[in-house]
Amino acid sequence: MTALEVGYDIPATPGMTEAEVQTPSLILDLDALEANIASMQSQADAAGVRLRVHGKMHKSAEIAQMQIAAGACGICCQKVSEAEAFARAGLRDILITNQVRGAVKTDRLARLPLLGARILTCVDDPANVAELSAAAQRHGTEIEVLVEIDCGAGRCGVAPDQAPGLAQAIVAAPGLRFAGLQAYQGSAQHQADPVARRGLIETAIAATRRAVDLLAADGQPCAIIGGAGTGSYRFEAASGVYNELQCGSYAFMDADYRRVLGEGAFRHSLFVLTTVMSHVKPDHAVVDAGLKVMSLDSGLPQVAGRSDVTYVAASDEHGELADPTSALRVGTQLRLIPGHCDPTCNLHEWYVGIRNGVVERLIPVTARGKSF
Amino acid sequence: MTALEVGYDIPATPGMTEAEVQTPSLILDLDALEANIASMQSQADAAGVRLRVHGKMHKSAEIAQMQIAAGACGICCQKVSEAEAFARAGLRDILITNQVRGAVKTDRLARLPLLGARILTCVDDPANVAELSAAAQRHGTEIEVLVEIDCGAGRCGVAPDQAPGLAQAIVAAPGLRFAGLQAYQGSAQHQADPVARRGLIETAIAATRRAVDLLAADGQPCAIIGGAGTGSYRFEAASGVYNELQCGSYAFMDADYRRVLGEGAFRHSLFVLTTVMSHVKPDHAVVDAGLKVMSLDSGLPQVAGRSDVTYVAASDEHGELADPTSALRVGTQLRLIPGHCDPTCNLHEWYVGIRNGVVERLIPVTARGKSF
Repeated sequence: MTALEVGYDIPATPGMTEAEVQTPSLILDLDALEANIASMQSQADAAGVRLRVHGKMHKSAEIAQMQIAAGACGICCQKVSEAEAFARAGLRDILITNQVRGAVKTDRLARLPLLGARILTCVDDPANVAELSAAAQRHGTEIEVLVEIDCGAGRCGVAPDQAPGLAQAIVAAPGLRFAGLQAYQGSAQHQADPVARRGLIETAIAATRRAVDLLAADGQPCAIIGGAGTGSYRFEAASGVYNELQCGSYAFMDADYRRVLGEGAFRHSLFVLTTVMSHVKPDHAVVDAGLKVMSLDSGLPQVAGRSDVTYVAASDEHGELADPTSALRVGTQLRLIPGHCDPTCNLHEWYVGIRNGVVERLIPVTARGKSF
Repeated sequence: MTALEVGYDIPATPGMTEAEVQTPSLILDLDALEANIASMQSQADAAGVRLRVHGKMHKSAEIAQMQIAAGACGICCQKVSEAEAFARAGLRDILITNQVRGAVKTDRLARLPLLGARILTCVDDPANVAELSAAAQRHGTEIEVLVEIDCGAGRCGVAPDQAPGLAQAIVAAPGLRFAGLQAYQGSAQHQADPVARRGLIETAIAATRRAVDLLAADGQPCAIIGGAGTGSYRFEAASGVYNELQCGSYAFMDADYRRVLGEGAFRHSLFVLTTVMSHVKPDHAVVDAGLKVMSLDSGLPQVAGRSDVTYVAASDEHGELADPTSALRVGTQLRLIPGHCDPTCNLHEWYVGIRNGVVERLIPVTARGKSF
C-alpha cells in the first residue's frame, strides 16, 4: 500500500488543526464521544441490563472497542459482511440483529466462529432455521439464534404466540443454540411525541413479556431478551423484561434524535465539516457538502453553534445556506449536524478524531459499504 | 492484494447468472447502457454539438471510456479527487464543473496536467482566479478556466454582465487560459412540467447568449459554451448558443428522470438488485435493500417489470414492499429502479455488468466516495 494522500485518500493527518482538515469530511469530537459512551454505559449498569452496542451506526471496529472497554458486552450489526469486518478486526461477540438468508450468506455466517467470535443471529421463519443448521453443521460451528418477534413495528418478526414453536425448531436443529428473543421496536425510536413513544414501547414490552412467558411455560428460558434504541432505551431498561439494550446513535447523536430527545440527552460528537466555496450573492452561500456526504432521509443538517445561518437546500455536491447578514466568506468552515447519523457514516472512509481543535487520530469506517 | 471474496468484497464473478449475484448490489444492463450511450451521442452529433459526459453520475472510468469511444469529447466531474481518480485511470480531458477553492485543492488540481490530462475548471470569483494562477505557476502547468454564470438556478455563478471582467482576470493570469462559459441550469433538469422546464431553459439560453455576446464584444471568444443535463439537453443542443452538452444520467436513467422525460427516452440500465429476506405477513415482504444502498432524495425506488408489488418504505438496511397478492417468496430477487442514480452509485464499489442474464464483467466505481 502506498502512502495515503491528504485530500485524495484521507482528509487529514494527526497534529493538524481542524481548520486544516480537507472538506467535506466526518469529524468526531472525541471528548463528546467518550462522554456519550460513558453515560450510556452507566445508565445500563444502573438499570442492571447489558449494553450490546449497535455497530451498524458507526461501522467502526475502533469505536466498538472503545464501547466494549467501557463495559459493553458485545456488538450488534445488520449484515454478514459487517460481521465479517468486525470479526476480522478482533470483535468477539457479534449479534446480527437481522435475518440472514440464502446459501452464500448463511455459509459465510457459519464460518465466522472459526475466527474466534461468538456469533448470534435472528430468525422469523422455520426455513431459515434449517438453512442455518445445515451451514453450521457443514463447518462444525455453533450459531446462537434469537427468535425475532414483531413487537409493533410491523417489519420482520413473528407474533409472540409463534415464538415457542420457532424456539423448539432451533433447539432441535444441530449446530444451533436457542439464545432468546429479539424484540426491537424500530418505528418508536424517532417518534417525537414522548407520550406516543412511550405508548409504542409499552405495547412492545407487553408483547415481549408475553413471548418470554410463553417460552418459559414451554421450558425455553431466554438468555438474551434484547432490543431498544437511543430513542426508547430508558423504557426497556426499566421494564424488568429486557436484559440487553442495542443502542447505537447515542454515541454520535444526530439532528433527528435531538428533536426526539431534546437538549441534555447526550452530546453531538459527529459533524460533517464543510467549507464555503462560492458566495456570489450577499445573502446566499454555497458549501461543499451535499447529498453524497450526508443522508437527507431525516431532514437537512443543522449548522452547529450558529443561529445566523441556515442550511436550506442540498444537491449532489453542494449545500446552499441562507446567510442573511453576510456572515460567511469563501473558506469559512462550518460543522454540520447531520439529520441521520447511520447512513451518513456509511458514505465515508474515515472519521477525523478531534480534541481541543487538533486532529488526534484518524478512525477508519471499518465496515463502510458492507451491505451483503 | 488478496483474492476478492464474493459476498464480502464483490457481489459476483463473471459467468454467474443474475440469480447468483449477492444482494443488495448495483447491476447494469449492458445492452441498455450501450444503447443509451449511442443514442445520446447520435443526438449530439445530429445537433452539431460536442458531448462532454458527466462522470459525477457513474464515477466509473470504464464507463467514461465507453462514452469516449462512442464519440464524447471528454468528461466532467465535480471534485478534484474525482478528477484525480479519472486522470490516474487514463482519462485525458477533464472539466471540473465546479469551483475549486483553498490551498490544498488548488495545488492538487494544478498538478493534474502532469499526468498528461487536459484540465479545466470553473470560477465565479476573482480571488479564485488568483489562487488557481499561483498553483499553476508553482507546478509549471496550465489550467483552462471557464467563467460560471448563474443562468437561473441561483446556486453558483456570476451574473452574465460580470462575465467579461472575470474573463479578463483569467486572461491576465499566468498559468491560466480562458476557455469559455459554464452555464448549467440544474434546477430545470427535474422540472416535471415540460412547459415550465422549457421556460427555465429558454431563460438560461438567453442569459448565456447575453454573456457570449458581451464576451465577444470584449474580444473574448468562448471555445466552450457548456451546460445541459439529461432533463433539458434537447433545448440547449438546438439553441445555437451552446456547443458542449454535459449530460450524465441518460446513461443509466432513474425513476425521477423517467417521471420527467416519460417513456421512450433512454432505457433503464441501472438497477439495485435485492432479495426478499422476510415475509411473515402474507401481504408484506421485506427486502435487503434500504437507505444504505440507495439514495431516497428523489423518492422511493420502483420495482422494475412488476405492477403487483410496490416498495413502500425504506429503513437503513430494509425495504418494505406491499405484496397484496402474496406473489413474493423469501429468496425472490427484484430489480429496483432507484429514484436518483448519482448518489445511489456513490454508495457502491462495483457495478455488475449483465448481458442476457449472465454476469459479463464487474465494473469498479472508480471515484466512489471521492468528495474532496
